[in-house]
Amino acid sequence: MTPSTRLEHDFLGELPIPNDAYYGIQTLRALENFHITGIPVKVEPLFVQALAFVKKGAALANKELGVLDPTIADYIALACDRVASGEFDNQFLTDMIQGGAGTSVNMNANEVIANVALELMGHQKGEYQYCHPNNHVNCSQSTNDAYPTAFRIALNNKLVGYRDMLSQLADAFAQKGEEFQNVLKMGRTQLQDAVPMSMGDEFRAFATNLREELLRIDDSRRLIAEINMGATAIGTRVNAPAGYPELVTQHLRQITGLDLSLAGDLIEATYDTGAYVQLSGVLKRTAVKLSKICNDLRLLASGPRAGLFEINLPALQPGSSIMPGKVNPVVPEVVNQTAFYVIGADLTVTMAAEAGQLQLNVMEPVISFALFTSISYMTNACRTLREKCVLGITANAQHAASMVYNSIGIVTQLNPVLGYETAASIAKEALATGKSVHDIAVTERHLLTQEKWDEIFTFENLIRPVFMK
Amino acid sequence: MTPSTRLEHDFLGELPIPNDAYYGIQTLRALENFHITGIPVKVEPLFVQALAFVKKGAALANKELGVLDPTIADYIALACDRVASGEFDNQFLTDMIQGGAGTSVNMNANEVIANVALELMGHQKGEYQYCHPNNHVNCSQSTNDAYPTAFRIALNNKLVGYRDMLSQLADAFAQKGEEFQNVLKMGRTQLQDAVPMSMGDEFRAFATNLREELLRIDDSRRLIAEINMGATAIGTRVNAPAGYPELVTQHLRQITGLDLSLAGDLIEATYDTGAYVQLSGVLKRTAVKLSKICNDLRLLASGPRAGLFEINLPALQPGSSIMPGKVNPVVPEVVNQTAFYVIGADLTVTMAAEAGQLQLNVMEPVISFALFTSISYMTNACRTLREKCVLGITANAQHAASMVYNSIGIVTQLNPVLGYETAASIAKEALATGKSVHDIAVTERHLLTQEKWDEIFTFENLIRPVFMK
Amino acid sequence: MTPSTRLEHDFLGELPIPNDAYYGIQTLRALENFHITGIPVKVEPLFVQALAFVKKGAALANKELGVLDPTIADYIALACDRVASGEFDNQFLTDMIQGGAGTSVNMNANEVIANVALELMGHQKGEYQYCHPNNHVNCSQSTNDAYPTAFRIALNNKLVGYRDMLSQLADAFAQKGEEFQNVLKMGRTQLQDAVPMSMGDEFRAFATNLREELLRIDDSRRLIAEINMGATAIGTRVNAPAGYPELVTQHLRQITGLDLSLAGDLIEATYDTGAYVQLSGVLKRTAVKLSKICNDLRLLASGPRAGLFEINLPALQPGSSIMPGKVNPVVPEVVNQTAFYVIGADLTVTMAAEAGQLQLNVMEPVISFALFTSISYMTNACRTLREKCVLGITANAQHAASMVYNSIGIVTQLNPVLGYETAASIAKEALATGKSVHDIAVTERHLLTQEKWDEIFTFENLIRPVFMK
Amino acid sequence: MTPSTRLEHDFLGELPIPNDAYYGIQTLRALENFHITGIPVKVEPLFVQALAFVKKGAALANKELGVLDPTIADYIALACDRVASGEFDNQFLTDMIQGGAGTSVNMNANEVIANVALELMGHQKGEYQYCHPNNHVNCSQSTNDAYPTAFRIALNNKLVGYRDMLSQLADAFAQKGEEFQNVLKMGRTQLQDAVPMSMGDEFRAFATNLREELLRIDDSRRLIAEINMGATAIGTRVNAPAGYPELVTQHLRQITGLDLSLAGDLIEATYDTGAYVQLSGVLKRTAVKLSKICNDLRLLASGPRAGLFEINLPALQPGSSIMPGKVNPVVPEVVNQTAFYVIGADLTVTMAAEAGQLQLNVMEPVISFALFTSISYMTNACRTLREKCVLGITANAQHAASMVYNSIGIVTQLNPVLGYETAASIAKEALATGKSVHDIAVTERHLLTQEKWDEIFTFENLIRPVFMK
Repeated sequence: MTPSTRLEHDFLGELPIPNDAYYGIQTLRALENFHITGIPVKVEPLFVQALAFVKKGAALANKELGVLDPTIADYIALACDRVASGEFDNQFLTDMIQGGAGTSVNMNANEVIANVALELMGHQKGEYQYCHPNNHVNCSQSTNDAYPTAFRIALNNKLVGYRDMLSQLADAFAQKGEEFQNVLKMGRTQLQDAVPMSMGDEFRAFATNLREELLRIDDSRRLIAEINMGATAIGTRVNAPAGYPELVTQHLRQITGLDLSLAGDLIEATYDTGAYVQLSGVLKRTAVKLSKICNDLRLLASGPRAGLFEINLPALQPGSSIMPGKVNPVVPEVVNQTAFYVIGADLTVTMAAEAGQLQLNVMEPVISFALFTSISYMTNACRTLREKCVLGITANAQHAASMVYNSIGIVTQLNPVLGYETAASIAKEALATGKSVHDIAVTERHLLTQEKWDEIFTFENLIRPVFMK
Repeated sequence: MTPSTRLEHDFLGELPIPNDAYYGIQTLRALENFHITGIPVKVEPLFVQALAFVKKGAALANKELGVLDPTIADYIALACDRVASGEFDNQFLTDMIQGGAGTSVNMNANEVIANVALELMGHQKGEYQYCHPNNHVNCSQSTNDAYPTAFRIALNNKLVGYRDMLSQLADAFAQKGEEFQNVLKMGRTQLQDAVPMSMGDEFRAFATNLREELLRIDDSRRLIAEINMGATAIGTRVNAPAGYPELVTQHLRQITGLDLSLAGDLIEATYDTGAYVQLSGVLKRTAVKLSKICNDLRLLASGPRAGLFEINLPALQPGSSIMPGKVNPVVPEVVNQTAFYVIGADLTVTMAAEAGQLQLNVMEPVISFALFTSISYMTNACRTLREKCVLGITANAQHAASMVYNSIGIVTQLNPVLGYETAASIAKEALATGKSVHDIAVTERHLLTQEKWDEIFTFENLIRPVFMK
Repeated sequence: MTPSTRLEHDFLGELPIPNDAYYGIQTLRALENFHITGIPVKVEPLFVQALAFVKKGAALANKELGVLDPTIADYIALACDRVASGEFDNQFLTDMIQGGAGTSVNMNANEVIANVALELMGHQKGEYQYCHPNNHVNCSQSTNDAYPTAFRIALNNKLVGYRDMLSQLADAFAQKGEEFQNVLKMGRTQLQDAVPMSMGDEFRAFATNLREELLRIDDSRRLIAEINMGATAIGTRVNAPAGYPELVTQHLRQITGLDLSLAGDLIEATYDTGAYVQLSGVLKRTAVKLSKICNDLRLLASGPRAGLFEINLPALQPGSSIMPGKVNPVVPEVVNQTAFYVIGADLTVTMAAEAGQLQLNVMEPVISFALFTSISYMTNACRTLREKCVLGITANAQHAASMVYNSIGIVTQLNPVLGYETAASIAKEALATGKSVHDIAVTERHLLTQEKWDEIFTFENLIRPVFMK
Repeated sequence: MTPSTRLEHDFLGELPIPNDAYYGIQTLRALENFHITGIPVKVEPLFVQALAFVKKGAALANKELGVLDPTIADYIALACDRVASGEFDNQFLTDMIQGGAGTSVNMNANEVIANVALELMGHQKGEYQYCHPNNHVNCSQSTNDAYPTAFRIALNNKLVGYRDMLSQLADAFAQKGEEFQNVLKMGRTQLQDAVPMSMGDEFRAFATNLREELLRIDDSRRLIAEINMGATAIGTRVNAPAGYPELVTQHLRQITGLDLSLAGDLIEATYDTGAYVQLSGVLKRTAVKLSKICNDLRLLASGPRAGLFEINLPALQPGSSIMPGKVNPVVPEVVNQTAFYVIGADLTVTMAAEAGQLQLNVMEPVISFALFTSISYMTNACRTLREKCVLGITANAQHAASMVYNSIGIVTQLNPVLGYETAASIAKEALATGKSVHDIAVTERHLLTQEKWDEIFTFENLIRPVFMK
């Protein structure tokens, strides 16, 4: 022990801790034991905040139930407020992936809060006889209820920002839907020309597609709002006073402002990772949709001379170190890649969830790493896609419309008048000869008059076909 | 053309069709083109039935809207009833995985129904001038609305049986929960002895865990009940008469008895596969849970002499071709494997969903293959697990309890009395010396009286600890 | 027991077996216990054959080592020959996914072979005192060596047919590469016009891409040729006579004609599934490549009027039930879907491999199901893609070339002459105004002479550019 | 432009660059465009180094072929040496996931090297007329060959460290294999007691299992050593002088010391991601094995009183915030989680590989992110597992042996003497009554003499059974 360190001990022995560190010996052991990602817990400030919320809620409930000295409880609560404010984020250094089912993170929180409280009480850091990480800060708790509860609170809060960004992205697509309402274009199925449509409807559909995701996020937020405080080690409530689970849940509802509820079966809730699997599935589903949409944007913007070239994406950077003037769809591309990351992370969550055993799922840290990262990346991807791409998309209306009038696909519009087989024979001839549908149907075969043709092929009727015989 | 065949044609040419076949030329082309799985559509009778439902609904709506001759419509409806009854299942021979976004399956249905109707009308099969697969049976439809609608109806119905079997499995666990209520056992976290619990609570938690899945299945059934009939090719309703989408949806609600609703944005609904991804995610989540539960059952039944041996699974078959008397947990093992299949199939669905392009997702057949198969296998796995395993599980109550009393983990119960650090030092000594917690705490260190010990370590207090200081 | 049944027993009790059944009581128990896929082992005749090979090899080795009566051994070998010929495939009814690590399949083989041998010896089926499934047919074996060895032999043989079909597919692409050598087309990166190329080179590259896979299949065949015969239960060789592992391996090399080798560490080899994971990864890699190639084919064939339309795929079937004349790329689509299946199956294999515990991986049956199915589907997909698509592809040479001459991308060819920045300014002007690169560079800006232009933009120089300044 | 900035321009416009930045305008655009992971390229110093290697190789080849001024080439080479040394790592700020297929990273390198060279030449940063990022540093290159080549060189070098750490881990297991050679323990299959074995053999098998991975890493290193320098944009070699591809490859072999080879088909090599998929599969396979091994370690260490308790893992940290004295297998747990991450990342690679289109796979950045991260994490996991766990494992030899002698599984050893059915009846009685195999076989049933028993059940014969009848 040097003057700049203090000695701390646990049942495995003693270690010197830097005097300015608010964390203690168990955090230090974690720092020595876990070097996998190099990414510390502090990169998720909402998680640090949620840990402080949990500890505060527990302290208040313990105080009310008489199992914690009121003065100590109040100092713990005060310390939690400061930790929740972000002031001590830099003390949360445990690697995001750790063994121990979150014990190191929980103890990191217990130790930091204890030492902050000690200083508020006028004591030195490490004088745990006045406020102990386990006996006081962790009172009536186990990692196995405190960690997942904090994780769920943090997820819930983090989803708010993500949901907002996704919602704004959907709005941007909807706005483009308005803007492109009168752009006529060829609809395509199986990459083959199908029937005409409005480009506005195509973009509005992207908005519809993404807005459904907002409802799924709401589902997830409800599911992860179920917590297991008071379960302690395995759900039997051992070491927790009567009434504590309900009371601490009530405090946490007030502290967080979230609609938290206590699980009905604490044994089950303590090992269950179903809500994480569900949330991960929701993130994956949105990733799948975003990837599909970005694939479409890239297809529609292909060209400029040897592609579909129906739309232009904003030019953000030179596209090639060798091909002059080339501009690439870099933002949809980065969103595709983000989606692939998220889909991969969903598999990580799946495997971790499956690996739970008996009364606990010890793999929760990698689940938290995967979910926090996926939500961050998805939030960033939505923001980027909206700001750097969607808002600046323009339509090549004339080119898009000319492809429609030049198409064979418009023959579908003649089905009700001519029947499928006649229409098919026109299509076949058009394909073989390069002639237009109009020339074959009206000029050569006299199957319908020019007047009837004009009536069927108005702009409005191409975009929103009215059935006529 | 031989006497036993009839000639049919489409715009690619003519082919002879066996006279006794109710399918026609387009089905025949599909049979020639697609040889991947060798598994025909008829293995999913609910899908054939749903196709018939869709065609009947369309015929009735078309009749009411005056776009289909009432007599033809009635014969089509009659033919649909017969097809829905399963009478013609053997005519649905298209491979489950096909190209063409389901066109071959849709045409298979159109052709079979047309020919059944023709015979009902007194005509010969193939006399399509009286009832045509495209012009009449497929009237106001495209594969792109008829196929997914039938798929969704079939999924919805198939989920009913699955949900029931899963529910019965959960009930079986709950029943064992009752039965084992007074079996004391060691709870374990991270495979290390933790604190005592009731084996009944452990099994009841399995029931809780699975019952949550029933709610998720209900969510999925709601999401897949949204259909896009009337969208026709790409959602612009081309070739569908005014009022048709709403009317056909209404008919389908009546025919199927399902709470079907028409999608608000038909452009989006025609390419969207979000509901399949969601459903697949729900199946995967249940698979993850079942796999975890089966892992637990296998762990708890490990032994008989060198394992945990807390429970006995029913002996179903000799377990080894070489080790006499060995009996293995074969049913949990087969459920684990089923779960791995379903998790793999979820990835298939994910990739297929991501591969959608522009106005359609052409990969829907492999999605249907994956989902139908997963639901079937999961249904079978739930039935097998319940009947062949769970219902026959017995507890080795004495052995389970002896491990508790012999454990170090019971020291946790002393935390509120002695504090975490003292308790830890007892644990450490017990581990090092092999002594019991009781001997160290009561006999040697006199940290609490025998009376206090007895008060804390009652059977009831071990299973449902009451907080005491 | 009725006259048409015989009674058999194992240590769990007695059951009546149909008299005409060659399988026995343990197979019957498996039929009762496992109803998951409904797909019996007999769908893989190469697996049945390989089981017979293994049993024959063991019998011969046992005979030579004096642990099996020579007469019984000879009859077993004779029976194995008949089973290997496919004559008794219909007796292998166990579900492809079973618990028990393959014990049921191994016993199915032991029982069938014993009964075939009994009849050859002039005894009745079931008179196991003369030839016993365990004591004689399974002599010196355990499921844990016999099953994986048979599985590996079957995989090895099944890969031969797959490799051949993949090789033929690559050849078909190479042939098209020759055919399209003089078709000029625009190369595209990031879906944006890049620089010109020969369509022949594009197709030849598909061949190159797939031919690399043949080497990877060869790697896999080598890895799965390592077997663990003689390991018996867990690799300690318990119950196997000295010299047996080496001898039976030698016999199996001769019987199968495969380059089989005995694993150096039998403990490890008995639980290791690394070779399956590797093989599954190879199948997945090929699936990824095939999917990419099919995506390309569909893109290049997009149109006919509003797409790239550089190539035509053979028209195999009408593409739409509503859009006349539409022909879709149904074969690439079905190959994409097959790829998604195989990628999903790879995850199944991964999870099953990870789930191995201690001295055995009990999940091998689902691995065998996944791998057999994937190889079958991939073989079918390669055949279909070659026969129904690649061989019939034609090029729209004129259209493809016109897109090149009309492109901005050809400006890259001017980099060495004009520098990147000048070239970029030409590109920018061309994009903004719709003018051609030639008009801007030669006619307007006089940056190079027409002679220089012609020298640079010869057909040959566009396809295989020669550097010039 | 302030005094502390310089103005740079590209074909999209002008931007001010901080004067002390060695990167230029295109890097700045990337910094503005890509905010997904927040993890910059500089976290992979081997990648920065490899980019410098590539640029140096190109400069030297260009100089020899007379397409680059010798003086400029020399200064570029000099600048590359400094960049390769790590001196400018902090200038590589582009987000690891970007759109543009690596163009931003390639330009980041081009700009930094150009500016370093400029300063070496006595010019100011930004005076690109003397040394231009595109015209000089990127001469004869495209992102599409330079980026993947650098990526492959970096992977190759990064694998060296990983391979070494994995090899050391395998050695540690082998060392424990020696140490535990005389520890008798029960082998288990399907979690059921099987037959006895040596714990040394169990640990040696872990070594065998992992050493096979070293060979697979070597395979991967060979495959990724194939590069496509000189392919330029799409493999047609446009803008590269004759002889350049071969020459630059030769220089790169010398600079890197790696056995690099030039791809035979540059069109194919420019879009192919097969080598990455293969490498990712190899990483995944090792992850699967490590996860299985860690599962085994956790099982074997389960207890201490209600588990298998055959081994002790080093106690690294208190295992619970509530359960005193609990010590958890935190290192195997963190390795399991790392494995799940890597398996998820493999899916990311798979999806990215499948998403390649036509002449390029634009998703390469997320592939690089996934692979670099996986290799780092796996390296860390191997180091941690070896240092913090394997080297300190001890055996509970007495307890392990007592479970053997107490087991029923030893009855297998009697098969050759008594036959399978008699042995099974002994096993059945032992299970039902709790008696020992010895008591039933020798004392009660007199099936063999005590002498014979002793001969069969020697320590040596339990560990390495010799066949006897």
